[in-house]
Amino acid sequence: MSHASHVHDQAPPVRVAIVPDSFKGSARAVDVAAAMARGVHDAFAAAGVEVLVHTLPFADGGEGTLDALLGAWGADALTVDTTDALGRPVRARYGLSPDGRTGVVEAAEANGLPLVSDVPLRPLTATTRGIGPLVTALLDAGAEEILLCIGGSATTDGGAGLLSALGARLLARDGSELPDGGGSLTDLHRLDTTGLDPRARSVRWRIACDVTNPLLGETGAAAVFGPQKGAAPDDVRLLDAGLRRLVDVLAELTGDDVRDRAGMGAAGGLPAPLTALLGAEVLPGSRMVAEVLDAERLMADADLVLTGEGRFDGQSLGGKVVDAVRRLAPAGRPVVVIAGDVSVTSEELRRSGVTAAFSTARGPRSLERMREDVLADVEWTTANCCRLLAHHFASPDVTRGPRP
Amino acid sequence: MSHASHVHDQAPPVRVAIVPDSFKGSARAVDVAAAMARGVHDAFAAAGVEVLVHTLPFADGGEGTLDALLGAWGADALTVDTTDALGRPVRARYGLSPDGRTGVVEAAEANGLPLVSDVPLRPLTATTRGIGPLVTALLDAGAEEILLCIGGSATTDGGAGLLSALGARLLARDGSELPDGGGSLTDLHRLDTTGLDPRARSVRWRIACDVTNPLLGETGAAAVFGPQKGAAPDDVRLLDAGLRRLVDVLAELTGDDVRDRAGMGAAGGLPAPLTALLGAEVLPGSRMVAEVLDAERLMADADLVLTGEGRFDGQSLGGKVVDAVRRLAPAGRPVVVIAGDVSVTSEELRRSGVTAAFSTARGPRSLERMREDVLADVEWTTANCCRLLAHHFASPDVTRGPRP
Repeated sequence: MSHASHVHDQAPPVRVAIVPDSFKGSARAVDVAAAMARGVHDAFAAAGVEVLVHTLPFADGGEGTLDALLGAWGADALTVDTTDALGRPVRARYGLSPDGRTGVVEAAEANGLPLVSDVPLRPLTATTRGIGPLVTALLDAGAEEILLCIGGSATTDGGAGLLSALGARLLARDGSELPDGGGSLTDLHRLDTTGLDPRARSVRWRIACDVTNPLLGETGAAAVFGPQKGAAPDDVRLLDAGLRRLVDVLAELTGDDVRDRAGMGAAGGLPAPLTALLGAEVLPGSRMVAEVLDAERLMADADLVLTGEGRFDGQSLGGKVVDAVRRLAPAGRPVVVIAGDVSVTSEELRRSGVTAAFSTARGPRSLERMREDVLADVEWTTANCCRLLAHHFASPDVTRGPRP
Repeated sequence: MSHASHVHDQAPPVRVAIVPDSFKGSARAVDVAAAMARGVHDAFAAAGVEVLVHTLPFADGGEGTLDALLGAWGADALTVDTTDALGRPVRARYGLSPDGRTGVVEAAEANGLPLVSDVPLRPLTATTRGIGPLVTALLDAGAEEILLCIGGSATTDGGAGLLSALGARLLARDGSELPDGGGSLTDLHRLDTTGLDPRARSVRWRIACDVTNPLLGETGAAAVFGPQKGAAPDDVRLLDAGLRRLVDVLAELTGDDVRDRAGMGAAGGLPAPLTALLGAEVLPGSRMVAEVLDAERLMADADLVLTGEGRFDGQSLGGKVVDAVRRLAPAGRPVVVIAGDVSVTSEELRRSGVTAAFSTARGPRSLERMREDVLADVEWTTANCCRLLAHHFASPDVTRGPRP
């Protein structure tokens, strides 16, 4: 053992990158990351191995992205008073990076479906207008870039409400402004951008979007996502026609026809005007988060990468956090997934490039109990994995016979 | 990676010792060991690491010990027709090592409590007589040693029934033979060993026993274990007096007074005459199994030791299989526990010398579902652990920066 200690004394610290998603419904990414860090420190300290831990709470652009970025930035959420998809007052959270350059908005804080689940859904009048004050608050703060997460919306207004809130005017043939909601877009005659906040054009927009649906038609915003927002078949036809009118007007105005572009059908068509008019870039959420956090560079020298999420299954390997992390992880380093539920097959795991995946369950457990214990169990499971690895980091030449 | 392959090509195979207990109520040790072996082979093969796997199904001297030894020996169970604790016909299993030298008997196959749970318990007449044919079968087969596992008995007859079955005679003052059962032992006047099978004396007896209770008194066989075998307070007093009479007679006959010796109170006093009269050695079950299987030698060159049991908790660290395995494992090698339920604390784990402990649960699960999936989940969990380790066995110098 003295030889092992000797090796340890001279060895550089083991670098561990901790890059988890939230455990949805159970724990925020920042708390999961902290629990993992405790497990790592605990296990390696007990083995007498020095570690350098880098925690990077991650997200996929969906729910929890704001919290993950705030956690990574060490920043608190800001709030602004705005309105929900039905125009009722609501206080919404948003974030700003410590250097003041990058703002992040989860649109659902204003136009989210859960916020309006207390009343019958109104697919034709639900509006994105409430996102406006969040954007304006960031523009007022001097943000140079806005990260917009758009999942979970109650709206199918093609972002018309947000455009209006930013100063554009959606006009009918008679020159009157259209009422809010996708149901009136078929009356759109002209988009007047004279009053549009110029800062909305100069700021850099990035939109996290994991669906590839186009704006219109059978696979479009109204047909695919409308029903879950309360749209009956007639509503779907009306909304689809309205979005078609909107994109016609946008194409005429900007020369950029985005109707067939992948992702424009997300969040009731919200990306369409932001892309055509404001030059927004649409990209997968986990890629956006990775870029913002500079995750690849921060992971580049890791000896071990730990990630995790509530449920690790076949879906996780297609664009979610775990997928992003294993792509960004340095080649040849173990990538370990810690999840509440591990449902991949051996074959899926092998193909994924993930080294190993452990559930936080410590025995027969109900979902409720697992949720209650999630942080303690994440810490325990992480420590367990690290104890196994620490052994080797401590003394690779002691744990086997001598090598030739 | 070519450097890693180079190292691998020249490296000796990784030696893995697989030494699990049964998962009680779910899977036999031999099946658990086979599932673990599949996981090990799967994971190391995928990593391109050669392994040498040694499976050693283990047991603690309790239920499942016969199966574990048969599994380790690659032998089938033998059977003999005998009687249960109430004298009713029963077919009982026993085992013989392939070299014919070592026999193993789980006494409960003949005098077990579960066998007589269909009728009201009869603590005063329940007898160990049915163990006799099992022992005789082994003596007939030429066994030089009998391993006797004594847990789960329905009897408190001080082994009187077995002695009778082997040819001894328990005589009352009037010279008549006593009826079976501990309730008649107070009438014991003399033990006539003239007819005792001489092979029962010459064979080596080892008794697996994990309790330290003495034969008599408040912590003795009747007082502590009698009630669970149906003894009312009056019965306890009668049985205790009977055992006292038996040990008096034994001491007089052999010059060896075993009444205060630890463990003599197990299984209704069964060890007492075997020790005093036949020279049996009483030892902890897991130590007996380890000795029989030569576990320490077989584990001596292991790079990795895998063990497991149904439930890994504080009790596991006091004399059960996991405790034995971690004591026998070569110093400095990782010892990994895979269990259905992992209930040790971090502190208990640290003190135990076990490197890491993983549950086979892959998410929220009922006990029933875990039991159904136990072998597949053992295989998966083992593979997961080994994937993590294979990485390091494959290329310890690649997974870290260069060492000084």
